[in-house]
Amino acid sequence: MTTPHFPGPPLALTMGEPAGIGGEITLKIWANKKQNQVPPFFIIDDPSRLRMLARRLKIDIPIKEIRSPEAADKTFDEALPVLALPMEVKTKPGKPTTDTAKAVIYSIESAVKLVQDGRAGGVVTNPIAKAVLSEAGFKFPGHTEFLAHLSGIEKDPIMMLASPELRVALATIHVSLKNAIEQLNKEKIIHVGKVCFESLRTDFAIAKPKIAVAGLNPHAGEKGSMGKEEIEVIIPAIKALQDAGINALGPYPSDTMFTATARKEYDVALCMYHDQGLIPLKTLGIDKGVNITLGLPFVRTSPDHGTAFDIAGSGDASEDSLVAALKLAAEMYIARNEMPDMK
Amino acid sequence: MTTPHFPGPPLALTMGEPAGIGGEITLKIWANKKQNQVPPFFIIDDPSRLRMLARRLKIDIPIKEIRSPEAADKTFDEALPVLALPMEVKTKPGKPTTDTAKAVIYSIESAVKLVQDGRAGGVVTNPIAKAVLSEAGFKFPGHTEFLAHLSGIEKDPIMMLASPELRVALATIHVSLKNAIEQLNKEKIIHVGKVCFESLRTDFAIAKPKIAVAGLNPHAGEKGSMGKEEIEVIIPAIKALQDAGINALGPYPSDTMFTATARKEYDVALCMYHDQGLIPLKTLGIDKGVNITLGLPFVRTSPDHGTAFDIAGSGDASEDSLVAALKLAAEMYIARNEMPDMK
Repeated sequence: MTTPHFPGPPLALTMGEPAGIGGEITLKIWANKKQNQVPPFFIIDDPSRLRMLARRLKIDIPIKEIRSPEAADKTFDEALPVLALPMEVKTKPGKPTTDTAKAVIYSIESAVKLVQDGRAGGVVTNPIAKAVLSEAGFKFPGHTEFLAHLSGIEKDPIMMLASPELRVALATIHVSLKNAIEQLNKEKIIHVGKVCFESLRTDFAIAKPKIAVAGLNPHAGEKGSMGKEEIEVIIPAIKALQDAGINALGPYPSDTMFTATARKEYDVALCMYHDQGLIPLKTLGIDKGVNITLGLPFVRTSPDHGTAFDIAGSGDASEDSLVAALKLAAEMYIARNEMPDMK
Repeated sequence: MTTPHFPGPPLALTMGEPAGIGGEITLKIWANKKQNQVPPFFIIDDPSRLRMLARRLKIDIPIKEIRSPEAADKTFDEALPVLALPMEVKTKPGKPTTDTAKAVIYSIESAVKLVQDGRAGGVVTNPIAKAVLSEAGFKFPGHTEFLAHLSGIEKDPIMMLASPELRVALATIHVSLKNAIEQLNKEKIIHVGKVCFESLRTDFAIAKPKIAVAGLNPHAGEKGSMGKEEIEVIIPAIKALQDAGINALGPYPSDTMFTATARKEYDVALCMYHDQGLIPLKTLGIDKGVNITLGLPFVRTSPDHGTAFDIAGSGDASEDSLVAALKLAAEMYIARNEMPDMK
């Protein structure tokens, strides 16, 4: 068996933007599945377009349409299992079109439905092109927000990114930097801190997680001389987290908190805005990064890269991040279900 | 000789915050000067306090008071040359006091005067504690702004940071993130781009510098869906730079532009705010980073770290960044003076 230790139902992998690299990295993962040691998964896609893509890239693997996710486990050893979309997907690598937007969205919706029904162990998403979906009328800024909507959760989900070197969680996500500053408040930081704390215990089996909270301003505001948000918002939030028994520390100047020495001192960096967390994570190595959505009622991960239209169709895209996303989803499923009392 | 190839006058090193690590890393550099291969320099400090510090740290080196910078070259081989401040400096490591603020400022002012008079090859500054100076009435947010004031230049100087892996230049510096966004405009980015371009040619001897301009917002605004500054400010600035014959490219999403692969494509990253540039630089390795002020009429560098009060007096501080700052100042002096026609 490919992954003898994964006891859950197979993972649901979405198609993602079909003009991007999602298809080809999925094919490559199955082609090298022994080496990659990924848990069983199925992709929700158009089998014909995957077969065409495999021919184009000369990735000679069997691709099998399955009727139900339950068939994926058995199928996975002999072929890439594809749960077929109810529509054709026609596109050229690197040339996205709004014609495929419905299929992209349908693939995500199906994956969520299956995991909610306990028929998939987790949702792993291939990258989407937000600009293309937005043009087609999709009103969510990204996967995270759409998944929250589909789950019907009341509080915002949290975007965490994890690589072998670093975990970061974001207090604000896909908004302009100006809006991120406006949106920042004590309650938001407390919410992110609490969700992170629970997830590190439940999904990552870290008994006493340490949370390093970043400042917003240069030098974390240098005692208020370069911005007041640390004093007015961030420090009160850290105190509230500490009062709730959570090991939150900071605020730390964000330029020095990601050095090799500093990173040893915490389990997750709680960052105030998108690039504050993503710059260090991707600078340290883009290939092994995984995007995780916390606060959803199910496990969701994705690779930490985009559609990469510039290299789509060339076969050059690295599958490492998607491999890491699949493995981490399985590990999180195991941690959650082996330790139900840890919450 | 220590640095047979440095043809300029000795470098002027400032005292910096005396309760910080500036003194001890200076002593360590001279103690290991053969290994460090630094150019001749003198420090503008209180010789007595340096002798006390040397005893405390058991760094057994000769410290010699000099009367003029011209004596530094000859003195440097046998002792650490100190140009004495006209006041005593009494302080304890890690315990800063506003009593020393005048001496800290005097040391910087003297260094600038000497380099303006051609008696020093460049100004290298030890870290200061902005909060301490501010409490003592100092009205500049940092070295860069103070040096600009002392030089009487009309346009803002540019803060560039350089390490073996990366060079970054900042469009905004020591202001809150909110103010940084407000201050950002087309003219500022064009100014930074032009100054960088000239400096890379003049001070770094790069014939055709490539400038990668960062976006401000996540995903560089993703076509305006997450912020308009790219469309309204940054792209017009890049076009204006290109029209001026400068190889400026972007705007690039700041989370992916600092990967090892991406960094090969440019000579400097032009960043919109302090942490956008300093996070990747310091995450990649804090010890070898150098801070450079461009747009001044003289060479100025400094180590890329702060006063480190937490370890001051322990002797644990690494002198690597100050070594790199001294060496780079000498290299810049040589490049400027060997190639006066490159402008």
